[in-house]
Amino acid sequence: MVAKMNPDLKKERENASFDPEKITNFLYGGQESVKRKRELDVHPMSVHTRMFLPTLYGQATEQQKDKWLKLAENYTIIGTYAQTEIGHGTFVRGLETTATYDPKTQEFILNTPTLSASKWWPGGMGKTSNYVVLMAQLYIYGKSYGIHPFMLQIRSLEDHKPLPGVTVGDIGPKFGYDVMDNGFLSLNNVRIPRENMLMKYSRVEPDGTYVRPPSTKLAYGTMVQVRAGIVMFSGMNLAKAVTIATRYSCVRRQSEMKPGHPEPQVLDYVTQQYKLFPYLAAAYAFWLTGQTMMSVYTTSSSQISKGDISVLPELHALSAGLKALSSSMANVGMEECRLACGGHGYSHASGLPRLYTNATPASTAEGEHVVLMLQTARYLMKSYNQSLQGEKLAGSVAYLSGVQLVPAAGRTRNMLDLGALCDAFRHRAARIVGEAAAQLRSEMQGGKDQADAWNASSVDLTKAAMAHSQYFVVKTFAERLTDSRLDSSISAVLTRLCQLHALHGLVTNSGDFLEDGYLTGSDIRQARRHINALMAKLRPDAVALVDAFDFPDGILNSILGRYDGNVYQHLLEWAKASPLNKTDVHQSYHKYLKPFLEANRAKL
Amino acid sequence: MVAKMNPDLKKERENASFDPEKITNFLYGGQESVKRKRELDVHPMSVHTRMFLPTLYGQATEQQKDKWLKLAENYTIIGTYAQTEIGHGTFVRGLETTATYDPKTQEFILNTPTLSASKWWPGGMGKTSNYVVLMAQLYIYGKSYGIHPFMLQIRSLEDHKPLPGVTVGDIGPKFGYDVMDNGFLSLNNVRIPRENMLMKYSRVEPDGTYVRPPSTKLAYGTMVQVRAGIVMFSGMNLAKAVTIATRYSCVRRQSEMKPGHPEPQVLDYVTQQYKLFPYLAAAYAFWLTGQTMMSVYTTSSSQISKGDISVLPELHALSAGLKALSSSMANVGMEECRLACGGHGYSHASGLPRLYTNATPASTAEGEHVVLMLQTARYLMKSYNQSLQGEKLAGSVAYLSGVQLVPAAGRTRNMLDLGALCDAFRHRAARIVGEAAAQLRSEMQGGKDQADAWNASSVDLTKAAMAHSQYFVVKTFAERLTDSRLDSSISAVLTRLCQLHALHGLVTNSGDFLEDGYLTGSDIRQARRHINALMAKLRPDAVALVDAFDFPDGILNSILGRYDGNVYQHLLEWAKASPLNKTDVHQSYHKYLKPFLEANRAKL
Ligand SMILES: Cc1cc2nc3c(=O)[nH]c(=O)nc-3n(C[C@H](O)[C@H](O)[C@H](O)COP(=O)(O)OP(=O)(O)OC[C@H]3O[C@@H](n4cnc5c(N)ncnc54)[C@H](O)[C@@H]3O)c2cc1C
Ligand SMILES: Cc1cc2nc3c(=O)[nH]c(=O)nc-3n(C[C@H](O)[C@H](O)[C@H](O)COP(=O)(O)OP(=O)(O)OC[C@H]3O[C@@H](n4cnc5c(N)ncnc54)[C@H](O)[C@@H]3O)c2cc1C
Ligand SMILES: [Ca+2]
Repeated sequence: MVAKMNPDLKKERENASFDPEKITNFLYGGQESVKRKRELDVHPMSVHTRMFLPTLYGQATEQQKDKWLKLAENYTIIGTYAQTEIGHGTFVRGLETTATYDPKTQEFILNTPTLSASKWWPGGMGKTSNYVVLMAQLYIYGKSYGIHPFMLQIRSLEDHKPLPGVTVGDIGPKFGYDVMDNGFLSLNNVRIPRENMLMKYSRVEPDGTYVRPPSTKLAYGTMVQVRAGIVMFSGMNLAKAVTIATRYSCVRRQSEMKPGHPEPQVLDYVTQQYKLFPYLAAAYAFWLTGQTMMSVYTTSSSQISKGDISVLPELHALSAGLKALSSSMANVGMEECRLACGGHGYSHASGLPRLYTNATPASTAEGEHVVLMLQTARYLMKSYNQSLQGEKLAGSVAYLSGVQLVPAAGRTRNMLDLGALCDAFRHRAARIVGEAAAQLRSEMQGGKDQADAWNASSVDLTKAAMAHSQYFVVKTFAERLTDSRLDSSISAVLTRLCQLHALHGLVTNSGDFLEDGYLTGSDIRQARRHINALMAKLRPDAVALVDAFDFPDGILNSILGRYDGNVYQHLLEWAKASPLNKTDVHQSYHKYLKPFLEANRAKL
Repeated sequence: MVAKMNPDLKKERENASFDPEKITNFLYGGQESVKRKRELDVHPMSVHTRMFLPTLYGQATEQQKDKWLKLAENYTIIGTYAQTEIGHGTFVRGLETTATYDPKTQEFILNTPTLSASKWWPGGMGKTSNYVVLMAQLYIYGKSYGIHPFMLQIRSLEDHKPLPGVTVGDIGPKFGYDVMDNGFLSLNNVRIPRENMLMKYSRVEPDGTYVRPPSTKLAYGTMVQVRAGIVMFSGMNLAKAVTIATRYSCVRRQSEMKPGHPEPQVLDYVTQQYKLFPYLAAAYAFWLTGQTMMSVYTTSSSQISKGDISVLPELHALSAGLKALSSSMANVGMEECRLACGGHGYSHASGLPRLYTNATPASTAEGEHVVLMLQTARYLMKSYNQSLQGEKLAGSVAYLSGVQLVPAAGRTRNMLDLGALCDAFRHRAARIVGEAAAQLRSEMQGGKDQADAWNASSVDLTKAAMAHSQYFVVKTFAERLTDSRLDSSISAVLTRLCQLHALHGLVTNSGDFLEDGYLTGSDIRQARRHINALMAKLRPDAVALVDAFDFPDGILNSILGRYDGNVYQHLLEWAKASPLNKTDVHQSYHKYLKPFLEANRAKL
């Protein structure tokens, strides 16, 4: 029997102004990729595939690859990436785990010498992995050479028992990641052969001679990729949350909008649109920006692999800021979507709590939010100072040298024009970068040293990095719409999303545009009216816009977000199936409640 | 053996400028109350005590109280409050459960006639409660009289089995509230005696005559109390999160601020202060505002109980906005505190995930955020229009008639002055209220009916309610500091918190103050500099300010937030005690991993 579609959702789909399949093709890069995507089983990404294998590809010598790669690729050994310790995550140089070279035996002796040196967090390390890539401080003849990667077997391949000197276990329950055994690891004089240091770049010769890597910046390349991936990942998670909340908001009818009329779909409340549509737009924005970042990286990677790493610092700074921006906005947006589902959002039946708890680490792992924003800011300050000294900047920071900072008064603007909106975001970013630089300078002129001045200016510096990243997203979104392959029905609706994304960013940060008079109060009021008008235009296309993300029900895992909209009956079935309902009277009654009630009755 | 205090925390406490006990006394209303609080065991509030008992107190006749109150107070019957259904939460008038009076037997026949009529969410209803207060549509001789409360026994007092016609169970796993059996309930021709309708206000006579209540607004009184309670609750939950994150940020040392220097406490990063201190200030703000609301209500309640309910609409509107503002800000703040703890915040060892998942329903239950903001807005519009017609407004909206909306140009302001800050928030609120009213008018002049115009203006209306509520909080916080009993060391530090609270609200909403030129760009820049300076002054007092909240470790339930700061060793002990670590090799190895690894090896 084919399940009937909820009539409200059916109508939504009939009334859309475009065919969502066309946007799906655009989002996934063509019909062929969509087909492949739909045929593929989806596997959760483990640290084994996300970190362990890439590290082997990137850091092992050919000989080392011959030895381990095949075993790892076929899951005969299962590995994880063990960098973070109890005491150190952000500050990699501060890691305390040591690898001390013993030239007599040509081995490294591995130790976690203090309590805070225990490795902590690596995914799958607690109970599953039998290997790790261990990041440790290299010591040779008493001298420290910094952090290097080592292949370390931690459990027996025979019986999976921890090897001698290895203490390993699970770090305990967490917000999400319920099935992931993030682990701890401490090491007591564990010896590994010299050949277990991953030596593609740095090397230790048998006699203890240390050979430096050609460049320390090469590791940046992987980071750019990983972070561009997180931008996409954030866009996708936001897209999932918005899909659930938008579909449910068309099924949910609540309150009386007009006396005597039937209850409206809650998506007809403009406040509900204002909760969801900005995040719908943001999901598209990050999805497309993540893709663009990936392809910029791919384009420049042949250049990079040839040793020309001149683009890397810029890509690195850009991807850091975008990763921080997108993951934090996804955090806020996923929760807003949950709250937009009212009480039912709080149930695991909505899928939203699990989506959130599994996605929220993206703003901490692979670089903590503020730490990344400050990295981006450092690059912005450097670039800005170069431009002050007359250098011409290129790439994503080129605008820092060109912008006219004094706004012309009395202009009238069309706040719907994407060009004008990009200009406004560019102006804002350039101004805030300039002001952060000025503050930094003035703190130093006031007598602070470089470090204290940096710290004193750091709130403004993160603001600058944020403004820079937001400008890049708005610009990239607008540019992607100039793709000539886009069908006009599609580009019309995507243009509305892009306008909404920009205008919403503008009104929620309106002070930044008003502070120096670049925009006027009447521009802002105009922007707010445009937002209302855009939301009204987007309303009939909302379901088609989330359908276009093409998440099957099995991926969304949400009763509220079901494609067929049959929410209430499935909520009830799901509840009835809950373990607590196996018996009408739960065992806790016999154990606790009955004696309690009887004792109380006796007291009367 | 007395546990040694972490030396960093010890130093923090020695260096504070004041004795936290003095603030503790201020927060809890005197030394005596603090003493009582510390002696009390803390019981989690169940729906039985929070809703069931109060409804009996408030809605039952004396006769009914005689029958049930003692049983309920001594927990011989355990009850819950069953209002929400699958299909209706916000829109109480839309509830579908029916209570049809049968004059022949003098009984009510209870039914949940549709799938969406099933009661859904009541706390403790699934497995624990044997009674509920059931909210149902009253029908007499085919005519509907709206929603009324009924006492309904749902489970046998003998064997706890559901009574005939009653289907009841747990609604399944949720984001938080793990131990709470929120339940569903459907009813099929369940009969209860006429005397089970709670008849303090409305009555049904044996012959089916309906007697109306003297006023329908009396129920507002309880709502004001409940919502003022949530303002306090939000302040307290934020206070807990800030306590954990602040203590941990003094124990956590990370990164290199100055080359060659030891790693600083992360609270020395100005960005970390900027994450935490605004929420520290907000926690104080909501704590104090909640108290003030409570005492305003208590003061006017004798008047109310005498039948003079003239203050109720205003208190109702105010408490709705404050509940919405405080609970949403607590949501955001608790998560910011978690993220400020880096990776460890994500572990249940931090206590922060559970704190969040248990506290976040406060912004949905007892009135959904946007729905409440729109209720406040409705009162603001009514008041504003009255003032346009020359009426003098009183209470929290008095300012709407007095404000000079045209800002004087060229003023210089001391942005630290609490009077000037209150003025700025008042001006902003009045302006936004006025503009929302103007928009509403212009939508209607443009041809929309009242309801459509309201909906079209609703984003601006919620903004008005928000601005009104924020002004009230800033003003209340400032007023509480004029308490003459406050020691000068205390009022100095609390004044800084109040300034920070106001200034942070101002810079994060700077557009609202700039839009009409009330403040200038240079005022905003001045505000930002003051924030930095205030944070530097608050830094040495941060630990004492969270100690003053006086949460014992047993309540915080957080290894990161331990009073003694001994974080790392307890993290490790906690992890080792995790169930997954009972055996070195987990059972899943034998079940899944071993066959998987062996099969892979065979393939090589
Ligand atoms: C779910 C999950 C999975 C993980 N998986 C792995 C894994 O597989 N392998 C692995 O090795 N690790 C893993 N990690 C660890 C993760 O990489 C770290 O938690 C992350 O890098 C953040 O570092 P931290 O915990 O030290 O945060 P901290 O640096 O302690 O951050 C705490 C606070 O200090 C502030 N701060 C720190 N330094 C500075 C600075 N220089 N300037 C300003 N502020 C600063 C931060 O902004 C933050 O607010 C995982 C973590 C999680 C939560
Ligand atoms: C943990 C928890 C415990 C609970 N405990 C109880 C209990 O003990 N007893 C009980 O009876 N109930 C309980 N509830 C239910 C709770 O009271 C409702 O969930 C709450 O009132 C919100 O209503 P809703 O779920 O219908 O949200 P909805 O009204 O469906 O909200 C969905 C969306 O629609 C929007 N919306 C709805 N109406 C309007 C409008 N008029 N204008 C603009 N937007 C609108 C909202 O803003 C929201 O974004 C509990 C809920 C939770 C999560
Ligand atoms: Ca959460």
